[in-house]
Amino acid sequence: MGDPKGSLQENYSSLMGKARELFILQSMGSIIGWDMETKMPPKGIQQRSQQIGLLQKIGHRMIVDPEIGRLIEAITGNKDYDSLDRIKKRNVHLMKKDYDEETKLPEKLVVETAKQSAITVDIWKKAKVAKDWEMFKPDLEKLFELRVKAADILMDVKGAKTRYDALIDLFEPGMTAEIITEVFTGMRRGLVKTIGDIQGAPRKADPSILSKSVPVATQVKIGESLSELIGYDVTSPEAGGRIDETEHPFTAGYYDDVRITTHYYEDKFASSVFSVLHEGGHAIYEQNLPRDWKYQLVGTGCSMGIHESQSRFVENIFGRNPEFWSHYYPILCELTGGALAGLALDDFVLAINHVEPSKIRIEADEVTYGLHIIIRFEIERDLFAGKIGIDELPQAWNDKYKEYLGVEIQNDSEGVMQDTHWADGAFGYFPSYALGNIYGGQMLEKMAGDIPDYKEKISGGSFAEMRAWLVENVHKYGNLYDAADLIKVVTGDDLRIEPFLNYLDDKYSNLYGY
Amino acid sequence: MGDPKGSLQENYSSLMGKARELFILQSMGSIIGWDMETKMPPKGIQQRSQQIGLLQKIGHRMIVDPEIGRLIEAITGNKDYDSLDRIKKRNVHLMKKDYDEETKLPEKLVVETAKQSAITVDIWKKAKVAKDWEMFKPDLEKLFELRVKAADILMDVKGAKTRYDALIDLFEPGMTAEIITEVFTGMRRGLVKTIGDIQGAPRKADPSILSKSVPVATQVKIGESLSELIGYDVTSPEAGGRIDETEHPFTAGYYDDVRITTHYYEDKFASSVFSVLHEGGHAIYEQNLPRDWKYQLVGTGCSMGIHESQSRFVENIFGRNPEFWSHYYPILCELTGGALAGLALDDFVLAINHVEPSKIRIEADEVTYGLHIIIRFEIERDLFAGKIGIDELPQAWNDKYKEYLGVEIQNDSEGVMQDTHWADGAFGYFPSYALGNIYGGQMLEKMAGDIPDYKEKISGGSFAEMRAWLVENVHKYGNLYDAADLIKVVTGDDLRIEPFLNYLDDKYSNLYGY
Repeated sequence: MGDPKGSLQENYSSLMGKARELFILQSMGSIIGWDMETKMPPKGIQQRSQQIGLLQKIGHRMIVDPEIGRLIEAITGNKDYDSLDRIKKRNVHLMKKDYDEETKLPEKLVVETAKQSAITVDIWKKAKVAKDWEMFKPDLEKLFELRVKAADILMDVKGAKTRYDALIDLFEPGMTAEIITEVFTGMRRGLVKTIGDIQGAPRKADPSILSKSVPVATQVKIGESLSELIGYDVTSPEAGGRIDETEHPFTAGYYDDVRITTHYYEDKFASSVFSVLHEGGHAIYEQNLPRDWKYQLVGTGCSMGIHESQSRFVENIFGRNPEFWSHYYPILCELTGGALAGLALDDFVLAINHVEPSKIRIEADEVTYGLHIIIRFEIERDLFAGKIGIDELPQAWNDKYKEYLGVEIQNDSEGVMQDTHWADGAFGYFPSYALGNIYGGQMLEKMAGDIPDYKEKISGGSFAEMRAWLVENVHKYGNLYDAADLIKVVTGDDLRIEPFLNYLDDKYSNLYGY
Repeated sequence: MGDPKGSLQENYSSLMGKARELFILQSMGSIIGWDMETKMPPKGIQQRSQQIGLLQKIGHRMIVDPEIGRLIEAITGNKDYDSLDRIKKRNVHLMKKDYDEETKLPEKLVVETAKQSAITVDIWKKAKVAKDWEMFKPDLEKLFELRVKAADILMDVKGAKTRYDALIDLFEPGMTAEIITEVFTGMRRGLVKTIGDIQGAPRKADPSILSKSVPVATQVKIGESLSELIGYDVTSPEAGGRIDETEHPFTAGYYDDVRITTHYYEDKFASSVFSVLHEGGHAIYEQNLPRDWKYQLVGTGCSMGIHESQSRFVENIFGRNPEFWSHYYPILCELTGGALAGLALDDFVLAINHVEPSKIRIEADEVTYGLHIIIRFEIERDLFAGKIGIDELPQAWNDKYKEYLGVEIQNDSEGVMQDTHWADGAFGYFPSYALGNIYGGQMLEKMAGDIPDYKEKISGGSFAEMRAWLVENVHKYGNLYDAADLIKVVTGDDLRIEPFLNYLDDKYSNLYGY
């Protein structure tokens, strides 16, 4: 082997060939993962974990191929490197980042972490049922120590200032706890004010009216109808998507085969409505990444937070918009064939925009949601800074829920053990959810400038213009920029909380009449 | 690297580690292939072909790993080689066979053949619709030449006497055209006699009575009921199988996750009944291979022919048995809720055992089926012996259909172009189908000796005893023997046509009253 002898272009092509194989492998892994959750016979689980383990091993072997390191060096060290366009430079940069991350972490640590995650998730499930934090704690502690080790190495690789920053960077490249702290401080202030406004408002939402029974087969039709409306094709002979049912909704796939799942509750039809819109938002982002960039690193979603901005844009900004329902509610009533009889549009819209501080993140509304995230972020930040220990997590959790949301946590299953993320070792992931809301607010502000009559489009039942705007202003950039830069390219601004808060205030003051 | 330094046992373990990865990869490929036929959104096809291509490439890289060659040499050359048990020896033998096949065929030829197959299948589809042999011929000729080249190399690898034997060996290891010719000669004589007997018999079947309309949802329930009856679990929380719908039924999977497909025709419900039984027969074979042999070469089905014997055993010997229907017909009538009203059991049983020479193999009954195979076998044998050319295929085909089955082929779409096998390059595959019937006959004869009251079991609606016999006498041997040896182990006899012919004569003389 030795140094690659090719020209700059040849070396770049070789590097892209390797990226291509990685993406093909990952796109297959995505289907294998989807199958496990949707179609696999129950008995197949052990076999499947072997398959997933092998895929990870093959993927790891591919990315740590020393030839990749040599190609990157030859490309970046080439005297004509600057002649590469920014897309190619970005591809090389992203490949280098992946290569550095995968090669610098010792395989022993990676394997040990994977095993410990599997064990910890398993224990977490049992401990959650048993409401027994002490059962969960020892394995969480082990996993945390492993993530600390990884963070120490990643700090160096990424030039991150803190361990926690190094972990955040895995999900939200370039983001730091310092920036998040600042923007979350403003967010908390704004959310608390909005919650107070709503609680003191003359109108009240009654979410219990959403419990009318709607058969699953009808909900399937509603999901297809909504998918069609947002431009996510799941039914035509050229469809690139499909909808299946799982316990927890998710999106999986790549470009021409992106699948979403939802959960149908016969007495909670709205749950599936908003799952389909949420996951559909993820799906159309994946499907509208530039076709020329398929199998390249630039041809992926920008970050977890930007991905979440797209799903929440479709679910909340579009899908919970009163004007959208003035158009779609009659269609929904027709599809449900009388099941919603007696349920007035205004009451329905209030109910789907019911705001109330609660204990469980995944059931939270779009206003209180951010507070759930702030709590998790602050705890993670303090944990990795050594300010609190694993021991103190339950108390820290309960104190913050009392202080920020005013709710009393009764046991650790509805408290510190409610989410799977920490059990899975995904420290640093949570902030992305709230960043998604914040990015979305900034995008909406910009879009409102570009399409001044966007509200009329929504009340006309059209998502097409908004969709086209998202494709042109967000999707088309793929992973050409880190999230912070993308937001600047899209809106001309740095990360700002005001647009999201203004959106909430505008929407909820109208809805609740305060 | 160099010579493996390990002990015999260490080298054997290393070799098995490599086999294990191959099986895990293949089991994943099987799911990816299943998904393509059942669930994949239409737009995903191009992406999927990239995934399958990559899987093949990775699998190829794994099997041609020179380390495998060195391990095999070190093991077989070890002075203590004979101390290995026969299972280990068989594993080494089968691994060596795969390794030799994959390493001796030049990669250029393999890639060219794969490409030419894809092209030829594509052209075949179009030519079949257009009934245009001349459109198909040039590409079939190219593909044939590539298979000749491969056969020349494989002759050497396998020590086969003829090119055609080398190809047969890919599907039916150890089998030769000479043996097949002999047994097929006897089979043809017997089948022609049985067909004549049935045509001259007093009773006549009326298959048109099977066209009563049965809704797909009901057929799904019937399929699940039949699966349960044969011990193929697709519904319980411990299920290791599932049933989906495809154009052409197939079985895919490995051990704990083996899936079958069927096709539901509302006005041909029997089609799905027998597809489920047929594919279910393949599935229970795969699921009952010895668990200790999972991820080993001995832990696979023995040959295509033995696999086919298992599917036909369940479909025909059990599933088309008049005594089985005396038990199951009332259940079927109940499941179909009156849709079969007025259809008497005896007429139903005759109809599902209707025998009539026809033009299309996949629609043929269990008696005439063998003649379709003999025709294909003789043509393939003569083609690879240079006795006929590609040019002469249509005429040879039509002449033989006239002579063997007494039918006039009207065009090449219902003639020489009816099957996909040649377009796919799978020359040598066809004999396995008929061998499956013949093996099955021998197994039945032996089983009748071991379970003298097996017919009473069947009329009692129980498949459990037959299933247990198959597991104990066939499944449990996996791929420990070549098919010819397995038949000897199971029945004490070499390949013999008489049991199959006796089974047919016994069954059909009773049915048709001749």
